[in-house]
Amino acid sequence: MPLPASIQAGAGQLPITQSFSVAVSGSHDASLDSEVQRFVAQLSRQTGIPFRSKADAAPTLQIHADHGRQAVQKPGEDESYELIVADSGARLTASTTLGILRGLQTFLQLVQITPAGFAAPAVTIKDQPRFPWRGLLIDVSRHFIPIDVLKRNLDGMAAVKMNVLHWHLSDDQGFRVESKKFPKLTGMGSDGMFYTQAEIRDLIAYAHDRGIRVMPEFDIPGHSRSWFLGYPELSSGAGPYTLEGGGPGPYIDPIMDPTRESTYKFLEKFIAEMAKLFPDAYFHIGGDEVDGKQWDANAKIQEFIHAHGMKNNQDLQAYFNERLEKIVAKNHKTMVGWDEILHPDLPKTIVIHSWRGQASLAAAAKQGYSGLLSFGYYLDLMWPAARHYAVDPMADAAATLTPQEKSLILGGESCQWAEWVTPENIDSHIWPRNAVIAERLWSPQEVKDVPSMYARMNAVSLDLEFLGLTHRSARMHMLHRMAGPADITALRNLADVVEPVKDYNRWDDAKGPIDFHAPLTRMIDAAYPESDVARHFSDLVNTFVQSGYKDQAAEAQIRTWLSTWRDNDAKLRPLDQTFLLKEDVPLSQDLSGLGSGGLQALDYLDKGQTAPDSWKAQQIALIEQAKKPMADMLLMVAAPIQQLVEAGAAQHN
Amino acid sequence: MPLPASIQAGAGQLPITQSFSVAVSGSHDASLDSEVQRFVAQLSRQTGIPFRSKADAAPTLQIHADHGRQAVQKPGEDESYELIVADSGARLTASTTLGILRGLQTFLQLVQITPAGFAAPAVTIKDQPRFPWRGLLIDVSRHFIPIDVLKRNLDGMAAVKMNVLHWHLSDDQGFRVESKKFPKLTGMGSDGMFYTQAEIRDLIAYAHDRGIRVMPEFDIPGHSRSWFLGYPELSSGAGPYTLEGGGPGPYIDPIMDPTRESTYKFLEKFIAEMAKLFPDAYFHIGGDEVDGKQWDANAKIQEFIHAHGMKNNQDLQAYFNERLEKIVAKNHKTMVGWDEILHPDLPKTIVIHSWRGQASLAAAAKQGYSGLLSFGYYLDLMWPAARHYAVDPMADAAATLTPQEKSLILGGESCQWAEWVTPENIDSHIWPRNAVIAERLWSPQEVKDVPSMYARMNAVSLDLEFLGLTHRSARMHMLHRMAGPADITALRNLADVVEPVKDYNRWDDAKGPIDFHAPLTRMIDAAYPESDVARHFSDLVNTFVQSGYKDQAAEAQIRTWLSTWRDNDAKLRPLDQTFLLKEDVPLSQDLSGLGSGGLQALDYLDKGQTAPDSWKAQQIALIEQAKKPMADMLLMVAAPIQQLVEAGAAQHN
Repeated sequence: MPLPASIQAGAGQLPITQSFSVAVSGSHDASLDSEVQRFVAQLSRQTGIPFRSKADAAPTLQIHADHGRQAVQKPGEDESYELIVADSGARLTASTTLGILRGLQTFLQLVQITPAGFAAPAVTIKDQPRFPWRGLLIDVSRHFIPIDVLKRNLDGMAAVKMNVLHWHLSDDQGFRVESKKFPKLTGMGSDGMFYTQAEIRDLIAYAHDRGIRVMPEFDIPGHSRSWFLGYPELSSGAGPYTLEGGGPGPYIDPIMDPTRESTYKFLEKFIAEMAKLFPDAYFHIGGDEVDGKQWDANAKIQEFIHAHGMKNNQDLQAYFNERLEKIVAKNHKTMVGWDEILHPDLPKTIVIHSWRGQASLAAAAKQGYSGLLSFGYYLDLMWPAARHYAVDPMADAAATLTPQEKSLILGGESCQWAEWVTPENIDSHIWPRNAVIAERLWSPQEVKDVPSMYARMNAVSLDLEFLGLTHRSARMHMLHRMAGPADITALRNLADVVEPVKDYNRWDDAKGPIDFHAPLTRMIDAAYPESDVARHFSDLVNTFVQSGYKDQAAEAQIRTWLSTWRDNDAKLRPLDQTFLLKEDVPLSQDLSGLGSGGLQALDYLDKGQTAPDSWKAQQIALIEQAKKPMADMLLMVAAPIQQLVEAGAAQHN
Repeated sequence: MPLPASIQAGAGQLPITQSFSVAVSGSHDASLDSEVQRFVAQLSRQTGIPFRSKADAAPTLQIHADHGRQAVQKPGEDESYELIVADSGARLTASTTLGILRGLQTFLQLVQITPAGFAAPAVTIKDQPRFPWRGLLIDVSRHFIPIDVLKRNLDGMAAVKMNVLHWHLSDDQGFRVESKKFPKLTGMGSDGMFYTQAEIRDLIAYAHDRGIRVMPEFDIPGHSRSWFLGYPELSSGAGPYTLEGGGPGPYIDPIMDPTRESTYKFLEKFIAEMAKLFPDAYFHIGGDEVDGKQWDANAKIQEFIHAHGMKNNQDLQAYFNERLEKIVAKNHKTMVGWDEILHPDLPKTIVIHSWRGQASLAAAAKQGYSGLLSFGYYLDLMWPAARHYAVDPMADAAATLTPQEKSLILGGESCQWAEWVTPENIDSHIWPRNAVIAERLWSPQEVKDVPSMYARMNAVSLDLEFLGLTHRSARMHMLHRMAGPADITALRNLADVVEPVKDYNRWDDAKGPIDFHAPLTRMIDAAYPESDVARHFSDLVNTFVQSGYKDQAAEAQIRTWLSTWRDNDAKLRPLDQTFLLKEDVPLSQDLSGLGSGGLQALDYLDKGQTAPDSWKAQQIALIEQAKKPMADMLLMVAAPIQQLVEAGAAQHN
């Protein structure tokens, strides 16, 4: 994963033994050398084999690249490779060393445990990406994410061949980049947690070694409250501003003042500094969700709008973007911004980044603008992997574009907005689901088999833990924290069948602004965004139903699960004495009730009896109750158990 | 854990909230400042609370030390502290900042989850160590252990108040320290894996920050094959030597030649260099297991023995040690060595480190030598925690010493010899069992309640994972490696009830020397040294038996376990297709048979029937079979199931 563009199975397999070795010919560079070292180390971790090749032995894997890489990676740089594995050895060739990086990741995924040892199957793979731009956005403003956490996520991105880290570095809740020209940006605009320029350079080098570009985003003129603590003169309101709290509503109102020349002077200096710090050719200026309230309320700004013959705030933002684009271009960068920046006055070089949908991309492409899709790839919405997987940048409105217009769609980016993540649980919000978005953007459009996707995603997920990601192990720590020293088996059973509420249902305006410094230690914070157990259980129930209730193996497995859940609440009882678990008691009780009901339904089915209406009504009431969010979570086995209950209450012969 | 010397419970508890803060008064140093930072970070990790104290609020925890620490930590430096926790705040005082380090670890352990939030119970603790020397030996010769792995183990040591890392840096299988004077020591005497002097200095500073001394060991004149690859003239044989293989028998025969002046010239230069690199006042020269075969076979050496009026090889080693001690002393270090160096010709300043038992310590103390115990603390022997816990440095022969002689026993060291560990699984061989040895050496002698020990050890074990140790998570990775992408539930059930064979039963001379570069990826390498599940199950069976087979709750739990095991082999079946699991098939079958037999025994007991003799004979045969080592592992539930089978076959009324 991602599935290669072309795979041809061969006969036999290449054993991976202690004598495994790599030989490199052709073009060489430091990135390639360090990648080969990492590749060997990772293969050693995966297999547990400490390699000890003899100097005179023939290499197991031969690598050859014709050309080196660009010093600053470009979108569209050749990432293709060819990998031929035979039982006697393997050969990886590519036009560029960047292609070699991609092919080595494919090799790692090919190596499997077999009855005879570790081995890679014989195969011929010819591979190249469908889209040149395959990114992950990480928001580090709402919750600061330390460099080491970003690094392990870069390792994960490289493993699934993603090539852009979109670093969302400033927002209302915090400014995260050291500016030597404007030290108050972090000095007053953050809680003291930010990246030094040395750390940023280090991260960019780390990413480059893995074939990943780093594009910074400084979101303006909206989402920019954090700028105004140190530099209130940039804002369109009176101030003063604080960082406390955050969320939707009035919180996002403060916006930059595009009518003052001083704003542009500031931005000129700031962007010049950042353009040097970030070598990438693209510079993201945000531009989303400018609610315009401060502009409406500011007489001078309204006067400016009239004086310049503008019709509305949108025109004012377009004016701002035009001026901004000139500054960005002067620093030899291409401007990228969200849907809202699309405006015919802007040059065709800019890139439209769509959080709204393929229609925005299509509209932009028709006007000659290139685009990126993030709509459908928001990891923070807690969708199942299959739902992200189904989203295609070329679907819907984009499907009707001409080939030339289509070529303007560069790819997409998954987005990890950070309202509800900490360094502890961010990995589990990104992985393994991000791997399926990576596949969507790399593999041919027709690769869309969902069961195959899940099987491969699960395999990748294990590999990623070997790389140091903590998307699985963190949950264990978090459950232990909730439970204290008690055994967590019952707690894990419960956590296994819940998912966080979807979309923005965790947000609650009634509770006021979000406290971004509150602990994120509830079960919702530990739970995986998608429950594997519930998915498997649902598949089992479907198998059982489709067999006409005759598949005994499936029924036995269903009974085992249902019994576990029925009995789980009693086992959880000593645990609910901790404050972090109190809110989960009703959830646990409901799960127990669902388990009992499911077992009764199976009993009716086994006896060929029709359950009484009163029983059915009672069960359905319980199920409806269990389907409601509790403690901001959903019991994902309610729906398949409803299938059983309805079957048990249906007429049988 | 370790349990403090004196604890007086108070009323109420101190809540740990976002406003938690620390104030330091009195003596200050860089170690203390960094320790306070780490303390706050660890408390934040444990509780998941991002602390945000207000500048003007009263501190939650006040810290005061009267004096600073020695620049180079000494054994016997004051580690006492007093910690008073009240519902309104806590106060930690100590004579030295070293005592503060110890007290902060106690505070971390006090914080628990409660129905109302995280809190530390009100308590007054006065604490000091029983022994001044509480160490962990890590052998890095047989398998190289990287610096980052050592660092996380230093974190673990600090958490349980251990204060010496005994770094076993050279042995037959590899020389691990860069010597600028003798570069061939690592250049030819290692597989390229060794520590640079900069890395060593960094590790020593890291340890010092945590109140831990670092004592190097260079084991001579035996266990020194790795020296002879680069410098064969040091040896008593002809050479040449290689590092390949290793183990008992002829492998350890090569020893240094104590009869040549050139040997001492070499050691003078080498020890001078190392004495500068390692600031600790103690220098361990090994001295164990000199088998003397090369001396016997070397006519010049035998001639030397006669010419100097020595009786035997022991006298020659004493002569060597005397000369060595002068070199060590000239470098302002105190010499430490294993039991075998004890000889009346050596000055009373040396320290005897006993791998043989308390009798060696007693003999040494009677002659005025101080001593350290490691007998009974060998973690590589795979003993259960309770067995290590029962070993006391002052027991047996040492119990009869006079108070003054007793004062010569400085403490002890647990030992992690590295024949069978890699960076991946070393944590699980050391932890959590090392915590109980730490308690033995810190807490009063009368602290010895085993159930309390296990309960507290399990709590510490969870805390250690929050510190970054991988003693639990590594097993999950290793089981996944064995299983490939399959679900590992059944595999975990099996792994949960096995233990590696004990003592040196994994060693097999018949197989020839150990290949120290072979993968350690079998189930024995993943298994915990002590099975919690088997211990719990055994306790349950005892409870059930002692109730006269009437405790229904215990019986229900026993039945759940037995059913799980009975059914587990069928679930494991798809997994045994991988080469790493093949050898475990008989183990899994036996576990299944044990589960069935145990359930049948319970059925007889429930019905008040006596099982037929033929059934009993069949079951006992199966149990005896299951008790034999398979794949170098033991099925730890065989014995308690035997109890059930014998009960089922006994006469009932």
